[in-house]
Amino acid sequence: MEPNVYASDCASRQILNRIGDTWSVLIVASLANGRLRYSELAARIDGISPKMLTQTLRGLERDGMISRTVHPVVPPRVDYELTGLGRSLLGLVNDLVVWSEGHISDVAAARDAFDAAAVAS
Amino acid sequence: MEPNVYASDCASRQILNRIGDTWSVLIVASLANGRLRYSELAARIDGISPKMLTQTLRGLERDGMISRTVHPVVPPRVDYELTGLGRSLLGLVNDLVVWSEGHISDVAAARDAFDAAAVAS
Repeated sequence: MEPNVYASDCASRQILNRIGDTWSVLIVASLANGRLRYSELAARIDGISPKMLTQTLRGLERDGMISRTVHPVVPPRVDYELTGLGRSLLGLVNDLVVWSEGHISDVAAARDAFDAAAVAS
Repeated sequence: MEPNVYASDCASRQILNRIGDTWSVLIVASLANGRLRYSELAARIDGISPKMLTQTLRGLERDGMISRTVHPVVPPRVDYELTGLGRSLLGLVNDLVVWSEGHISDVAAARDAFDAAAVAS
């Protein structure tokens, strides 16, 4: 079977869910310059709850995009790093971030126009 | 203030939510070759509920990425088309789809390894 993201039972649909997910995008982008600890990720990604951070890291690890290293020190230190597969996402993830940051005024203008039309109609 | 997608109160975060969203990605990609009717979109995007399709189309319209045209015929015909802003997303959206469809086996292998390690530990 050819991969087809439009088919709900194709594995590529699940992968699209993962790589488009905002928290995953922000974690992958945060790891672009090298490994970070859990607490560093939590500090960098404003608004992510500990539960969501843990869950998203686990999903990214399961999907082979990040690796998790536990250092046998006291207290234990755990850090996260992109794998080769995760690094292959960096271009894409960067494009998503740049587009989002670069089109704030376009989207805001569109929303204002849409909301004004809704009130008028 | 500089746009910063890592800040939860920056408008760019909301835009990232929109453009990473799987249903939005599939709708924008579906409209790459021109306008489509609601029923054509519903047929093309397997697994999307009518409620989710309506809601996502409305969100994309509000955010200025698609336009909606109602043709005054009986029965009324409604179709959807990318705006200039929506078309500026096509490269990105195509990259997301291609990456998802191209990495099925890598992600599946990673999941198998992760699940086997979880059972073993």
